[in-house]
Amino acid sequence: MSALVRILSLAAPPPSLDDNTGDLDRLQRAVTGHPEWGGGGLRVPYRCLAAVAADFRGCGFKGTAVLHEIPPPAGLPVDEGAAPDFELVDFLPAPPACLPALALDLGTTHLEAVLLDLLSGAELARGNRANSQIAYGADILSRIQAAGQGERLSGLVELHRAVIADVNVLATELAAQIGMKSEQIRALSLAGNTVMGHFFLQLNPYHLCREPYIPVVNAPGPAAAAELGLALHPAAPVHLLPGVGSYFGGDLLAGIVACDLDQAEEPAMLIDVGTNAEVVVGCRDWLVACAGAAGPALEGGVAKMGMRAGAGVIERVKIEPTTGELSYQVIGEPPAAERPGKEGEFPANGPERGSEPPRPRGICGSGMIDLMAELFMAGIIDIRGKFRPERMGGRQLTGPDGLAFVVAFPEEAAGGEAVTVSQVDLDALMRSKAAMYAILGTLMEKVGLPFTALACIYVAGAFGRHINPRQAVVLGMIPDLPLDTYRPVGNSSLAGACRYLLEAGVRRRIAAVARKITYIELNVNHEFMIRFSGSRFIPHTDRGLFPSVVVPE
Amino acid sequence: MSALVRILSLAAPPPSLDDNTGDLDRLQRAVTGHPEWGGGGLRVPYRCLAAVAADFRGCGFKGTAVLHEIPPPAGLPVDEGAAPDFELVDFLPAPPACLPALALDLGTTHLEAVLLDLLSGAELARGNRANSQIAYGADILSRIQAAGQGERLSGLVELHRAVIADVNVLATELAAQIGMKSEQIRALSLAGNTVMGHFFLQLNPYHLCREPYIPVVNAPGPAAAAELGLALHPAAPVHLLPGVGSYFGGDLLAGIVACDLDQAEEPAMLIDVGTNAEVVVGCRDWLVACAGAAGPALEGGVAKMGMRAGAGVIERVKIEPTTGELSYQVIGEPPAAERPGKEGEFPANGPERGSEPPRPRGICGSGMIDLMAELFMAGIIDIRGKFRPERMGGRQLTGPDGLAFVVAFPEEAAGGEAVTVSQVDLDALMRSKAAMYAILGTLMEKVGLPFTALACIYVAGAFGRHINPRQAVVLGMIPDLPLDTYRPVGNSSLAGACRYLLEAGVRRRIAAVARKITYIELNVNHEFMIRFSGSRFIPHTDRGLFPSVVVPE
Repeated sequence: MSALVRILSLAAPPPSLDDNTGDLDRLQRAVTGHPEWGGGGLRVPYRCLAAVAADFRGCGFKGTAVLHEIPPPAGLPVDEGAAPDFELVDFLPAPPACLPALALDLGTTHLEAVLLDLLSGAELARGNRANSQIAYGADILSRIQAAGQGERLSGLVELHRAVIADVNVLATELAAQIGMKSEQIRALSLAGNTVMGHFFLQLNPYHLCREPYIPVVNAPGPAAAAELGLALHPAAPVHLLPGVGSYFGGDLLAGIVACDLDQAEEPAMLIDVGTNAEVVVGCRDWLVACAGAAGPALEGGVAKMGMRAGAGVIERVKIEPTTGELSYQVIGEPPAAERPGKEGEFPANGPERGSEPPRPRGICGSGMIDLMAELFMAGIIDIRGKFRPERMGGRQLTGPDGLAFVVAFPEEAAGGEAVTVSQVDLDALMRSKAAMYAILGTLMEKVGLPFTALACIYVAGAFGRHINPRQAVVLGMIPDLPLDTYRPVGNSSLAGACRYLLEAGVRRRIAAVARKITYIELNVNHEFMIRFSGSRFIPHTDRGLFPSVVVPE
Repeated sequence: MSALVRILSLAAPPPSLDDNTGDLDRLQRAVTGHPEWGGGGLRVPYRCLAAVAADFRGCGFKGTAVLHEIPPPAGLPVDEGAAPDFELVDFLPAPPACLPALALDLGTTHLEAVLLDLLSGAELARGNRANSQIAYGADILSRIQAAGQGERLSGLVELHRAVIADVNVLATELAAQIGMKSEQIRALSLAGNTVMGHFFLQLNPYHLCREPYIPVVNAPGPAAAAELGLALHPAAPVHLLPGVGSYFGGDLLAGIVACDLDQAEEPAMLIDVGTNAEVVVGCRDWLVACAGAAGPALEGGVAKMGMRAGAGVIERVKIEPTTGELSYQVIGEPPAAERPGKEGEFPANGPERGSEPPRPRGICGSGMIDLMAELFMAGIIDIRGKFRPERMGGRQLTGPDGLAFVVAFPEEAAGGEAVTVSQVDLDALMRSKAAMYAILGTLMEKVGLPFTALACIYVAGAFGRHINPRQAVVLGMIPDLPLDTYRPVGNSSLAGACRYLLEAGVRRRIAAVARKITYIELNVNHEFMIRFSGSRFIPHTDRGLFPSVVVPE
């Protein structure tokens, strides 16, 4: 059972003229006198008082007490042996079959959630939902601006309410999947970037994007669900995972513990590409992190000029170097019963059996990386990522953004509209790949280790799930290491939030990581800019860094 | 300074690129690292988080932090040496001149409040207000009935809202008297009977008046003002003083510590006549309490058949035994600037200078006791409290309730209407005085001590303030002891609530008293009924109990 919630079955002597203790006092006495109690102090939050007492009496003074752990306050030395305090929040006629809790990745574009059973640790349901804040701005900066609008931060209030409403919809949907109500969800852990965390708590993000980039708070204490307007159990503790800085949120800390980076014997790395590229390197002895804008082209593993991975989207491209013949792979419709994942994953076994693959209507981030690597190896773009018109053949086109390359001709594409990629698109991807490699290089320089010292590179999220590491190496986006060094880890932020709910040790580890991690602010790093310049070539100005990549003539 | 609230002046280093701690994390670090900190853990309640961080930044990261003590949870052994945890609730540019807190006596008919400064302990303002719940029923039982009306306890919600609104009006008025807002009030302590406490917390009082008379809770933990809809500082802790049983509320515990009964070296007694007569006897080693209905005639020290003490009310009566000549004293108008006290006290110096004493329009409780004792000593009533018509002379009258005695004739009374007292009125007072003496006797019997063992009898409230102990002894209402044994202590419930705010030791003492006090339920006590019968004579069937009272022929 998770330490966050405990249940204790008990039978108290009923009241009499000789024992006229109050109902709640009687219950508290029964709990703290229970042989399995073992807790420290016991409180009953005011918001639960009447209901708990009435239910205790309604159950004939016997049944199951439900207790929520009260996290210790800040500023105290960690005493792992100390018995935690608990809140008495419910009294049930019998032990519950499960104690649902929600773990949530608070993404800028999508919220992804898992409903867990705190008793067994089992996953009960899973779902996702677009972040309604998109209506206020697609990216973080425009939302920060939207939050500053209006009298008395009314813009912030709107953004806050939007994300709270999203969480409530997700909580209701997931609870309904197991025949329960959202009010039966007993805890919520969330991990997100620092700006999303500020919106969630209705904190002014104004200083997050202004030097010296200071959050209102990095490590907020837990709030009760009712205080935030969440449709969970009113006393459900809401744990927003702590962050370390404005560009380094709880999502990355969650990822670190999800990959057990803080317990690794050999140095390893975690790369999480979301709104920013966030990278951590370290082991159980030390951890160094940095974050930086890796360019919008990589956001969510998706090219802006293309589209998010989904049905009808090109995700793999192959160009035969000798003939120039181009082939591609299109994501099929997911089975109707399967909800799309955060990034609209398509079934691992390819398109549904018996159905024709759909016609292409766009290209996604992993498709773009494939395409660009293939274009380079076929000599159609040069080491600066610029088209060589003389090599483009019949796929050359002049579109609204100038020179472009046809990936799918109108007659093969959905709706009869060609899928093309322009020089502007390629330039954006070049900046992104250059930024990524510069971030990784700057970080390793800081820790004084070569890339080859890394036992493992965990790649989180859609970027890790969809990317073909070989093609990313060809482009010089990631270091030229054995391909099995790269390990996709899925939504590590969500995985960390899940473990936060289930393992008391993880909560302590996250707090410990937050204390010990060293954070480098790349936005103001001169060395980063130098490395960025060298990385704006395929694979790099220093070809010796990419010995496995044979640059074509 | 009260331990409930602390202030710490500090200056934190401003944020920089090299020190990008979050604002609130910075503040928490400055507080817990302050040389005068000395606290345990530190929390920031969610409801204060945004404002505290913004004010800290707005003050340039220097100023005064305001901290509210977090009371320890229940179920832990009391460790007086342990550093308490605190909540960080405000950040001010400079140390505040005062820290107002409200102490309140939550009476059935009146609320009386004192605004205190937690820094100096000084009284800042004082006021009172009729309890608006009177609209739902004059007495406790009719209000319990009203609370049970409506769907989903909507009656209870109404009664709860009525008393919360009363507290808010009082808080606003008292704060305004010192040029502040009620939101600057940082703590509230309340003492009341158990039913009033239930209404205040919106707890169902249904079982309070049904055997075995069980409260929902005797010792509720503190709630935050915002949770209760109180217009105080949202994080102000609200401490409802604990009670011991349905007929034994926090008002009596407050009174015990206000009189230091729990620290007395010799046994002493406290009598508090409110809705019930509540009596405690004991010393620092032991305490025994009981409560019982002493009859409505004594409620608030006031005869129901008469009226509350106030301008134009007869409060003293004298009958010359030989001539039968009757004289009385009427309460004068209080000076306009003086608000009436809880019981409408009249100025100690008598009527306003230069003004004629007003004409009588009724008689109050202390006047009734005087009258009845004088009627008895003049032989106008017999030892059963019944009129002897042959002794009533020209003051005999037959009114709507049958035989009555004229205290003031129409020509001397206000509005030309006679002030009279009927046999029904006398019978009610007889029941009350009999109940009172039976309660006291039963209690002393239980503790195995004679009345003469009592060093002191504290008499609280209006009953203590207005009564003439000698006349009460003549009636056989209170034991025949030297008159200086009786000491009026005013509103001891309010006095205890004040000390609760100012002295951490008092909070521990009240909890200790609640644990150690023995409570006797008189409603079900056979011995009480026997004693009650013997007390229904003036002064008693056993005249040896009242040697100082010479019974006339």
